[in-house]
Amino acid sequence: MAMTGVLRPGHVQIRVLDLEESINFYANVLGLVETGRDAQGRVYFKAWDERDHNSVLIRQADTAGLDFVGFKVDSVATLNKLEADLKDYGVKTERIPAREMLETGERVRFLLPTGHTFELYAEKTDIGNGQPYINPEAWIPAAEHGIAPVRLDHLLCYGPDIEKAQAILQDVLGFYLVEHIELEDGSGDLAIWLSTSIKAHDIAFVRHPEPGKLHHVSFLLDSWEKVLRAADLMSINRVSIDIGPTRHGVTRGTTIYAFDPSGNRFETFCGGYQSYPDGKPIKWTMGDVGRGIFYHDRTLNDSFLSVVT
Amino acid sequence: MAMTGVLRPGHVQIRVLDLEESINFYANVLGLVETGRDAQGRVYFKAWDERDHNSVLIRQADTAGLDFVGFKVDSVATLNKLEADLKDYGVKTERIPAREMLETGERVRFLLPTGHTFELYAEKTDIGNGQPYINPEAWIPAAEHGIAPVRLDHLLCYGPDIEKAQAILQDVLGFYLVEHIELEDGSGDLAIWLSTSIKAHDIAFVRHPEPGKLHHVSFLLDSWEKVLRAADLMSINRVSIDIGPTRHGVTRGTTIYAFDPSGNRFETFCGGYQSYPDGKPIKWTMGDVGRGIFYHDRTLNDSFLSVVT
Amino acid sequence: MAMTGVLRPGHVQIRVLDLEESINFYANVLGLVETGRDAQGRVYFKAWDERDHNSVLIRQADTAGLDFVGFKVDSVATLNKLEADLKDYGVKTERIPAREMLETGERVRFLLPTGHTFELYAEKTDIGNGQPYINPEAWIPAAEHGIAPVRLDHLLCYGPDIEKAQAILQDVLGFYLVEHIELEDGSGDLAIWLSTSIKAHDIAFVRHPEPGKLHHVSFLLDSWEKVLRAADLMSINRVSIDIGPTRHGVTRGTTIYAFDPSGNRFETFCGGYQSYPDGKPIKWTMGDVGRGIFYHDRTLNDSFLSVVT
Amino acid sequence: MAMTGVLRPGHVQIRVLDLEESINFYANVLGLVETGRDAQGRVYFKAWDERDHNSVLIRQADTAGLDFVGFKVDSVATLNKLEADLKDYGVKTERIPAREMLETGERVRFLLPTGHTFELYAEKTDIGNGQPYINPEAWIPAAEHGIAPVRLDHLLCYGPDIEKAQAILQDVLGFYLVEHIELEDGSGDLAIWLSTSIKAHDIAFVRHPEPGKLHHVSFLLDSWEKVLRAADLMSINRVSIDIGPTRHGVTRGTTIYAFDPSGNRFETFCGGYQSYPDGKPIKWTMGDVGRGIFYHDRTLNDSFLSVVT
Repeated sequence: MAMTGVLRPGHVQIRVLDLEESINFYANVLGLVETGRDAQGRVYFKAWDERDHNSVLIRQADTAGLDFVGFKVDSVATLNKLEADLKDYGVKTERIPAREMLETGERVRFLLPTGHTFELYAEKTDIGNGQPYINPEAWIPAAEHGIAPVRLDHLLCYGPDIEKAQAILQDVLGFYLVEHIELEDGSGDLAIWLSTSIKAHDIAFVRHPEPGKLHHVSFLLDSWEKVLRAADLMSINRVSIDIGPTRHGVTRGTTIYAFDPSGNRFETFCGGYQSYPDGKPIKWTMGDVGRGIFYHDRTLNDSFLSVVT
Repeated sequence: MAMTGVLRPGHVQIRVLDLEESINFYANVLGLVETGRDAQGRVYFKAWDERDHNSVLIRQADTAGLDFVGFKVDSVATLNKLEADLKDYGVKTERIPAREMLETGERVRFLLPTGHTFELYAEKTDIGNGQPYINPEAWIPAAEHGIAPVRLDHLLCYGPDIEKAQAILQDVLGFYLVEHIELEDGSGDLAIWLSTSIKAHDIAFVRHPEPGKLHHVSFLLDSWEKVLRAADLMSINRVSIDIGPTRHGVTRGTTIYAFDPSGNRFETFCGGYQSYPDGKPIKWTMGDVGRGIFYHDRTLNDSFLSVVT
Repeated sequence: MAMTGVLRPGHVQIRVLDLEESINFYANVLGLVETGRDAQGRVYFKAWDERDHNSVLIRQADTAGLDFVGFKVDSVATLNKLEADLKDYGVKTERIPAREMLETGERVRFLLPTGHTFELYAEKTDIGNGQPYINPEAWIPAAEHGIAPVRLDHLLCYGPDIEKAQAILQDVLGFYLVEHIELEDGSGDLAIWLSTSIKAHDIAFVRHPEPGKLHHVSFLLDSWEKVLRAADLMSINRVSIDIGPTRHGVTRGTTIYAFDPSGNRFETFCGGYQSYPDGKPIKWTMGDVGRGIFYHDRTLNDSFLSVVT
Repeated sequence: MAMTGVLRPGHVQIRVLDLEESINFYANVLGLVETGRDAQGRVYFKAWDERDHNSVLIRQADTAGLDFVGFKVDSVATLNKLEADLKDYGVKTERIPAREMLETGERVRFLLPTGHTFELYAEKTDIGNGQPYINPEAWIPAAEHGIAPVRLDHLLCYGPDIEKAQAILQDVLGFYLVEHIELEDGSGDLAIWLSTSIKAHDIAFVRHPEPGKLHHVSFLLDSWEKVLRAADLMSINRVSIDIGPTRHGVTRGTTIYAFDPSGNRFETFCGGYQSYPDGKPIKWTMGDVGRGIFYHDRTLNDSFLSVVT
């Protein structure tokens, strides 16, 4: 009990159109730490303050987008239990062998009704955050190499049947609803934000006709001033910015949306209130959706509902 | 699973020497919101962004200090289960009837080996954070009334037998160890920081000969700039500052320690990294304890180990 | 010598369409301090940390816009000298009697070739910044009433013949050029930023066919976090935001452009490097003008060159 | 007029005990940019955003301390005029030939009654701030190399006869008084803060029996968060911190005092209000001097009045 079961989004695998250009982007502009490459040609990264071996994998492909997201669970026992629970719930699962991903144990993979491939895993090698576990410093030079997010934070997925995905995540995996945007006709939600911890969101979904689409992968920054620094570095490096720096009404976090060289949107995010499962979800209505998403502009920009990979 | 069981420190009851002076301090200097008074003469407060009815109770007494701390659990079922688990573990528990504390359900009370009175409870009335649950704003004027912390964050308790308290909190209640300071002779720890969530600490203990002592109750601020604002307001209001603004090495959070009019230390705290139960605890050795506690001064001030209530 | 002569933009008079609505806006949303009203119906404001009696006057009119801007000079002797110098230079001047504006001495008024009415004055009553001149605090509650800028900072004027205005300001009044945007054909500048101090700009001009137009009046904030707070308050109060929070390439200041209820653009501005008259001006070319004005978006928005009052 | 005459403190020459250790400190910990070395063995530095060739010179010596401070004036004509004015006032001056200091023109040197060697100079080669004068970026990597102050800001000198130094600086060189601490018996000031611009101080003095002593040289940071970063880097590099991060009551700036490896105190400073010569000086009385100097601690630490070099 307390913080157990599904802990957090632990890895994402992203398709990129030009591997070399992307390696440079993820390593030197976004400022992740490269931790390995594998026989499939995948390149592995982690954010500087993460301790597990990897959180972002990129691979060369003809189309951009998200291959899958993996959530770390607290133990192999939990992994086995959740696999059984998923099956009981009618979700088909598949085992990916240990070491198929570098320094990562067995993964239980399944397809969400929104068309997104999800994984659960219990083991990934602790390689530390560049500091000893005894008497560390507050931060290290890697914390200032490029944008240098602290951690992978969450992702926003676009696809159909988000209520079915929500049911699986809540009923089987222990997520809870933090905020949602209700459709005008009351027939359901346009968007949902779900947490498995006390973060304001570990994953979010927007209803969308095409399945399996990625809106953005989000990386955590420590402060609003780091958000400004990220925006500056995006300009210095001529990164395409979608919107920001600004604030979200939903979660109250501060944000920039921008695009990697392949057109995958990413977010540099700070804050968001602490959320708890005993809290009543916050509802946004369609009349206020602009303010809910972009708190200062108070209107959705053209790309929010249309540009995904 | 995920975030379940013991959620967070939900209320503390603090003894003050002059109730009127203290009401003014907690309402207008610290900037909590008064939410009620009861027949026993206790005055109830919450931080502006908390939704539950109360988190800080003060009562007039001849000596300052902490009466008890209560942790909220996710359900009545959990409360009953944890009560049984505590008893099985050999911990004597007591039920405090619902409504003995305003807007609060039944509490299960027990004494930690460190001499601190702990409570678990499942129910406290949601009175909101001053905003509707539909289409809220990012913040409200109460967020700038006095120091105006966002929430109660954690507390630091001084007492003997901290390893026995640690065992109960970890083995029965699901806390996990985040950081610790090891005694020079390796016989145990001088101090331990425990989390029940992904906060870097929900409670901490320092080994101390006298039981049941309070080092500080900590309140969460949103940014380092809010820490500066808090320090300014302490000076404007002639609040006695113990140390700060500065940073802790442990948790990496930024901080001010100061005293309420009765001499109870409180902390205005920001940050601290996100911690997870799959992370290896960080160890500090006695040679680096100064830097661990006060990262910039790199030495303990006189009061850290001696002034408690 | 040192800091002498023309000191700073000391007052602006702005036309508003609905006086009552505007009083509420300037007092409670922008957060200026009302300091008086006169027989003409003008309402006087100052920013909280300014010491002179007023810096912003509003008056009811049929069209929005700027009546005039006044620069404070260091003494009556300087006022007389600059009046003579202006006349020698061929600029027609006019004396406005003392007390025509509340708590303000004689003003020397003249028309810039861009069509803007300028004034110089030496005297305005010191009413303090709400604090004693002995043993003050760091700030006062007025510093958090509304957006609460620290001071009037600068203004941006649109009109023709900006090189003629520049010549007067530089050759007669002692301003110097800090940055400029050069027209593509090299025939002159699209925009110029001029300082009379070590601020990155005390006034700026953009070449524009219509004379006497106001692009924005700018107010100084202390930090990027105060810029976020300003944006939040604009949303909470449903103020129309033009762009921001963002950064300018020119001056490197952080910024929000927004509109008062009459459509007069104002800016909440922070930073900008320290500029000195011995520094070489920075030049922007038309190919980089987007990045020069809006450093993150790297493109002018539609309104920048078209919406003025 | 406007910003003319004496512009700013442009260079300081500091004595260090171990040149190699100090070069590493000034280049990699404080984060200045080395710009040259001369035949005398002096090493030249500038802050990253300064454009003139140098602002800090260090030289090996047996005792730490300040050799001299130089103020830049706006032109050779001004240099000649001020030299004549100083002589008329009874101040003995000396010419140091051009190029005695690298990339620096002739200097007019004189001794202040406080025992500090002052210089005026009009020429120092503009080597830029690491960016082109056409279409620059907001900042460059040097802005994050070590503490990386933006500029040399001011210095605080200790010595006798501060009223005589004040008279020369005000009456001859155009400085003005911004704040002062009055001695208890009203016989004069304990300390004075003088500006030659709109900075809250370009130089300050504290009355002290020994002449020619340096309290600190101050470097400008952009934000309170950069002050935190500086404190972190001081700890990471085991720099001896005197006090801070904190705020001054005087000037309202935020600050850390720390020591270079030779024991010369330096300050990393942010903010301070904009000051103008038409403003009434702020007075502090001895009863509030602690709050005036260290706004949060509200008491002088032991070293403030005693540790100088």
